[in-house]
Amino acid sequence: MLVGGKPYRTVRWEKGSVKLIEQNLLPFKFKIATCRNFGETAEAIRNMTVRGAPAIGAAAGFAMAQAVLAGKPKQGAKTIKATRPTAVDLFHAVDRVAAADDAVEEAQAIADENVRACERIGTFGEKLCGARVLTHCNAGWLACVDWGTALAPIYKRHRKGKRVFVYADETRPRSQGARLTAWELRNEGVPHAIIADNAAAYFMQRGKIDCVFVGADRIAANGDFANKIGTLEKAVCAKEFGIPFYVCAPETTIDRKCKNGSGIKIEERDGDEVLYQRGLCDDGKIRRVRVCSPKSHARNPAFDVTPAKLVTAYVTERGVLKRGNLIRLPRK
Amino acid sequence: MLVGGKPYRTVRWEKGSVKLIEQNLLPFKFKIATCRNFGETAEAIRNMTVRGAPAIGAAAGFAMAQAVLAGKPKQGAKTIKATRPTAVDLFHAVDRVAAADDAVEEAQAIADENVRACERIGTFGEKLCGARVLTHCNAGWLACVDWGTALAPIYKRHRKGKRVFVYADETRPRSQGARLTAWELRNEGVPHAIIADNAAAYFMQRGKIDCVFVGADRIAANGDFANKIGTLEKAVCAKEFGIPFYVCAPETTIDRKCKNGSGIKIEERDGDEVLYQRGLCDDGKIRRVRVCSPKSHARNPAFDVTPAKLVTAYVTERGVLKRGNLIRLPRK
Repeated sequence: MLVGGKPYRTVRWEKGSVKLIEQNLLPFKFKIATCRNFGETAEAIRNMTVRGAPAIGAAAGFAMAQAVLAGKPKQGAKTIKATRPTAVDLFHAVDRVAAADDAVEEAQAIADENVRACERIGTFGEKLCGARVLTHCNAGWLACVDWGTALAPIYKRHRKGKRVFVYADETRPRSQGARLTAWELRNEGVPHAIIADNAAAYFMQRGKIDCVFVGADRIAANGDFANKIGTLEKAVCAKEFGIPFYVCAPETTIDRKCKNGSGIKIEERDGDEVLYQRGLCDDGKIRRVRVCSPKSHARNPAFDVTPAKLVTAYVTERGVLKRGNLIRLPRK
Repeated sequence: MLVGGKPYRTVRWEKGSVKLIEQNLLPFKFKIATCRNFGETAEAIRNMTVRGAPAIGAAAGFAMAQAVLAGKPKQGAKTIKATRPTAVDLFHAVDRVAAADDAVEEAQAIADENVRACERIGTFGEKLCGARVLTHCNAGWLACVDWGTALAPIYKRHRKGKRVFVYADETRPRSQGARLTAWELRNEGVPHAIIADNAAAYFMQRGKIDCVFVGADRIAANGDFANKIGTLEKAVCAKEFGIPFYVCAPETTIDRKCKNGSGIKIEERDGDEVLYQRGLCDDGKIRRVRVCSPKSHARNPAFDVTPAKLVTAYVTERGVLKRGNLIRLPRK
């Protein structure tokens, strides 16, 4: 996708180096990090220079290719796998590259496959996408290698020259909607407005939203899915106001061993994410400010589980699926 | 209610002066402003040192008493009425004090009546109040003279020695929940947690919330009501998860001339409220930081309208009312 009119990927291989968009600095600064060896790439994964399961997977594949080229496949695999111990895509990528005849080619294939999958999600999703879309959090290309998941249908529609306007939920507490989704949309030239998470139902009630597109972190076999905190509220409101609600994710997000949402454990993160906000001061410095009353505490569940009954359809790279089809879909 | 263990009112008369809690400085600083004449009190109303319709009404009454004592009733009425041109309670208070035999006594009566009304809302609401309560925005004593509306039942329950835990919605964009409600609850010693607005449905779904208490800015004759943006989302979610949803407000909030919610005009405020956040830096300074992606815009409706069908009951100083009773209730 475009940044300042130039096409970019979040993760890219260039002459033995891994080039990464420094996501820690976004949206206030756009910078490309260069990781010259697997140690540097692993560190970039660990410190969240790169984020989002597919982007992490691609970065891990390239890191492993660097390790193989350096003649240190075992040490590389160990180092890379230790960065984000719960990232399934990362483990798969490392093992795939380790077992390949040509490590760089395999790592490139992992990245390219993800781009293709996201683009297909965009193509299928575009057919369902109306002119006024609500999205929550960031399921855009910054979390993938290119295109994104929930934002891919929007980008496809926009590039076709059709009218589209996006309401981007701020997505407190980490504000990925206000920071990353808005940043992506502006760079791609898609008209949009950031709204407080509280305002989504207001616009739904007034007929200003045609459809909701969100991503997913994990989809259970029955269609229940986990995604960023607040997704559940949007799904409940979409049902109340009769607005179609679509979940966009690559096939790998469907966990057929997980029967339903009750099997998905939700991480509760540090309350400081609610109590403090980071932002750009007028003097150009990025500072942390306390936005809540002193001495009060916060509860901070990071995700919630939306029941399948609230989902209109799931959009994957293999097509548009209804609930029942999630289970019946043959494995690749 | 208590601040640092000492009882306070938001607005108080003391030897010809009006004493106001400086709400602009909360929650980071607690200070009492002293307004020595009607000009100073009017300015405090204008610059939002005092906020909340009932608190503004009480302050306006005392300001008018100052004007009468100074022998300038006409100039006083004009000055005070010009501060917040849409505040109905302010107009009523000024006219009432102007027409009274004893201006100071009448102004005190206005303040005392509001305290009594809020305390009665608390007494009636306490009977409906469970141990785990969700509230949105700040409908506490800071918006009134004492007790508050939506928080009054919670305070009553707490003072009875019954167990109560409050989930306080942050209430973006102005974060009155995280700043004012949390501040009130802490000072009164009520156990609570601030949550991102996104997290309310999560706690509802997991059975952690017994009831929702909110205030109202305006209630139409059919029971539709306007309140802080996000109230609608909470009401929709409460219905989805079968949780009672109560609206607490003094009788004066019911606008019988307004047939239903479609007659309530919603103010859209400056998008900067979404794009920037004010907070306390580590160096003790209060600063404004940009929390959204640069060059993106925001839409910022300040209120929303919740349909009557989502309300379990209305709690006023005259008792607990069901929808139909709002209209049938005889005027005082």
